[in-house]
Amino acid sequence: MTGVSFTVHAAEGAARTGVLTLGRGAVRTPAFMPVGTAGTVKAMYVDQVRDLGADIILGNTYHLMLRPGAERVAALGGLHAFSRWQGPILTDSGGFQVMSLAGLRKLDKDGVTFKSHVDGSMHRLTPARSVEIQTLLDSDIVMQLDECVRLPTDRANIERAMRLSLDWAERSKAAFGTQPGKAIFGIVQGGDDKALRIESAEALAAMDFPGLAVGGLAVGEPQAVMLDMIETVVPHLPAGKPRYLMGVGTPDDLVESVARGIDMFDCVMPTRAGRHGLAYSRFGKINLKNARHAEDPRPLDEASACPAARDYSRAYLHHLTRANEILGMMLLSWVNLAYYQELMAGMRAAIAAGRFADFRAEVREGWARGDLPAL
Amino acid sequence: MTGVSFTVHAAEGAARTGVLTLGRGAVRTPAFMPVGTAGTVKAMYVDQVRDLGADIILGNTYHLMLRPGAERVAALGGLHAFSRWQGPILTDSGGFQVMSLAGLRKLDKDGVTFKSHVDGSMHRLTPARSVEIQTLLDSDIVMQLDECVRLPTDRANIERAMRLSLDWAERSKAAFGTQPGKAIFGIVQGGDDKALRIESAEALAAMDFPGLAVGGLAVGEPQAVMLDMIETVVPHLPAGKPRYLMGVGTPDDLVESVARGIDMFDCVMPTRAGRHGLAYSRFGKINLKNARHAEDPRPLDEASACPAARDYSRAYLHHLTRANEILGMMLLSWVNLAYYQELMAGMRAAIAAGRFADFRAEVREGWARGDLPAL
Repeated sequence: MTGVSFTVHAAEGAARTGVLTLGRGAVRTPAFMPVGTAGTVKAMYVDQVRDLGADIILGNTYHLMLRPGAERVAALGGLHAFSRWQGPILTDSGGFQVMSLAGLRKLDKDGVTFKSHVDGSMHRLTPARSVEIQTLLDSDIVMQLDECVRLPTDRANIERAMRLSLDWAERSKAAFGTQPGKAIFGIVQGGDDKALRIESAEALAAMDFPGLAVGGLAVGEPQAVMLDMIETVVPHLPAGKPRYLMGVGTPDDLVESVARGIDMFDCVMPTRAGRHGLAYSRFGKINLKNARHAEDPRPLDEASACPAARDYSRAYLHHLTRANEILGMMLLSWVNLAYYQELMAGMRAAIAAGRFADFRAEVREGWARGDLPAL
Repeated sequence: MTGVSFTVHAAEGAARTGVLTLGRGAVRTPAFMPVGTAGTVKAMYVDQVRDLGADIILGNTYHLMLRPGAERVAALGGLHAFSRWQGPILTDSGGFQVMSLAGLRKLDKDGVTFKSHVDGSMHRLTPARSVEIQTLLDSDIVMQLDECVRLPTDRANIERAMRLSLDWAERSKAAFGTQPGKAIFGIVQGGDDKALRIESAEALAAMDFPGLAVGGLAVGEPQAVMLDMIETVVPHLPAGKPRYLMGVGTPDDLVESVARGIDMFDCVMPTRAGRHGLAYSRFGKINLKNARHAEDPRPLDEASACPAARDYSRAYLHHLTRANEILGMMLLSWVNLAYYQELMAGMRAAIAAGRFADFRAEVREGWARGDLPAL
C-alpha cells in the first residue's frame, strides 16, 4: 500500500492508539468518522467538523451514486472539492444501503441490481463497479462490496453471505489495484457465528488488505453479542493493520470496542440523534424534548469546549427542539459530534498514558450517574 | 422617549441614512431586520447574523407567546438571553399572525380571541396584553396591536380596521408608558385608500410615537400600489422619526422603498427562500434547483464576502437543495441574509455619498442583466 502506513504508538490490553497515514493526511486512532451521507455531515458546516478534531469523514456510495452521481462528482473534482472537506474520506461500498434503502433488489453471485429510492431508476453494483464509483469519488479508503445480513437469521444464510463477501473481497481488491496514498479495506462477515467470523477474518488477513473492517454487527443483536464477536475476530486480524467496526455506535459501544482492539468507527447516531432532540454527554444521553428542561437556564454542560453545549440554555434547546427549528438540529448535531470527538481524544490520550482502564471506568461512572439533578 | 434618539445624517431625495439609538445599541438606517420568528433566525447561528452586519432582529409575539410563552422567556432573562442575540430586538404585536396563522379567531373592539395553531389552546390579545407580552420578552421596539386587512377588500372594511387600529394605538401607547432606552411604534393602516392612509398617518403623528410603521402592505397588492401608498403616507409622517415598512420585501422593494423615505424593513423572504433553494444576489434571483446549475463548478458570486456565496460550487448547492439537505438551507439562508445586509450597507453608503440615484440604477441594472451565462 504505497504511501499508506499504520503505526501503533501505545497499547493497553487490546486497546491501542496510533496513526493511520494516508496521502491526504493522518488519522489519529482510535478514530470516529462523522457520516457525511450525501456529501454533507448533516446540519454541520464542514469547518465545524474539522474544528471538532475529526481527521476523516465517511461518504455513502449508495446515496452519492444515485445523487448527484459518481461521474458528476468526478467531473467536479471529486468529493473533497465538491464538499469542501480537505482531509481523508472513507466511502462504504453501497452494499449495506442497497439492502436497507433500495426498493426492489436482486442479488446474484456477481452483484446486486436495485431500484433507486430517489427516482425509481434501476442500478447495478458489482465489486468492480463499487470500487470504480468510490474511485470516481476520489475516496481515500475504499471498502470492498459485501453482503451484510440482518440478525437474527439462519446459519446457512450467514455462511452464504460470508462466502459471497469473501469472493467479492478478492474481486474488489483486484479492481482497486494500486492507488498511491489510498487504501482498500476488506470486511469480515459471519453474523453471530464465531466459526464463520474466524474463517472470514483469516481468509481476509491472507489477502493482505491494508485495513480490515468488521461488518454485519449492530444490525439487531444485543451489545453483548456484538462485543463477543469483536473479541472473537480481533485475534485473527493482523496486528499491524487498522481495524474498523462499521456503523457503530453509542458512546458505550465505542469505549467497549476500543477496549477490544478496534481502531476506527463510523455512525449516524450523533447527527441523527441531534436532529431528534437527543444529546450525548458525559452525563449520558439527554432528551431535550423532556419537560424537565423547559425552564432550565443551565447549559447542557458548562465544562464543554463546544459552544453549543456550553453557551445555550437547556430551556432554549428544549424550545428549539419542540418547535422543530433547524437551529436545534444544528446545535445538537454539533453537541453530539463534539462529544464523540472528545471521547475519542480522551481514549487516545488515556491509552498513550497507560490509563485507559481508569478512563473507561470514569466515563462509565459519569454515564451511570446520569444527568444533572433538576433545579 | 428616554434614551432613544434618531438622527438623519444625510438624505438624497426622499432617501435618507441615519442612526436609531436604543438602549441596547445603535441601528444604522436604512436597516433590514432578519426575522427570528420563534427566537431563532431560521437555520442561522446568531453570531453569523451579527457578523453579516445586522444591527437588530425581529421576534414574533404570536409565535413566542404560544411557545415557549412570554412569562417563561421573562423568567429565563428575556429574549436576548434566551436566544443569545445581544443587540436590539423589535417584536411585532402578534395581530398580523393571529389573522394569518391562528385557527378560530374572533375580533372585537377590545382585542382578538384565537385558537393556537400549535396546541389548540385559546388565547386573547388586547392592546395592553400585546404590550405586556412584548415587555416580558424585553423587546427594544414594541409594536402597537393593530388590525391588518388583506387586499383587495372593500373600503368600509379598510376604514373600520384603520379606526380600530388608531384606537388600539392609543391604548398600546398608554400601556407601554415610559421605558428607558426602548420605543413603541404606531402603525399606519388604511389599505390601498389614500385618504384613509393619510388620516391614519396624521392621527398617529399627533400621538407622538417614537417611530411609525406602515403596515398592511405587501398583502396581495401589486408593487406599484405599495409604492404609491408609501409615497402617499411618507409626507404625513414626522421627518425626525424612523419609518418602518412592515413585512417587506424583495431586494427591489427595499431599494424602491428607501427611495421613497423608508428607514427600516423586516421580511422572512431571504431565509424562507433560502430554505427552498432560492438565492438573492447582484445577478437577481437564482433558483438553485434548476438543472443548469447541476454541473457548474462556479460559486454563486465569486466577489461576495459571504463564504456561502463565494466558496461553494453551484453544483454543490444544487445537489444539497435537490437532496433537501439541511446544509443547503443553512448555506442559502446565509447567502440571502448576506446579500440583504450588503444591499442595505450599499444604500447607506450611497446616500451618505450623495450617489443613491446611481447606486439604485446600478443594482437594478445588475438584476436586469440576470445570472451568469451558463458554462
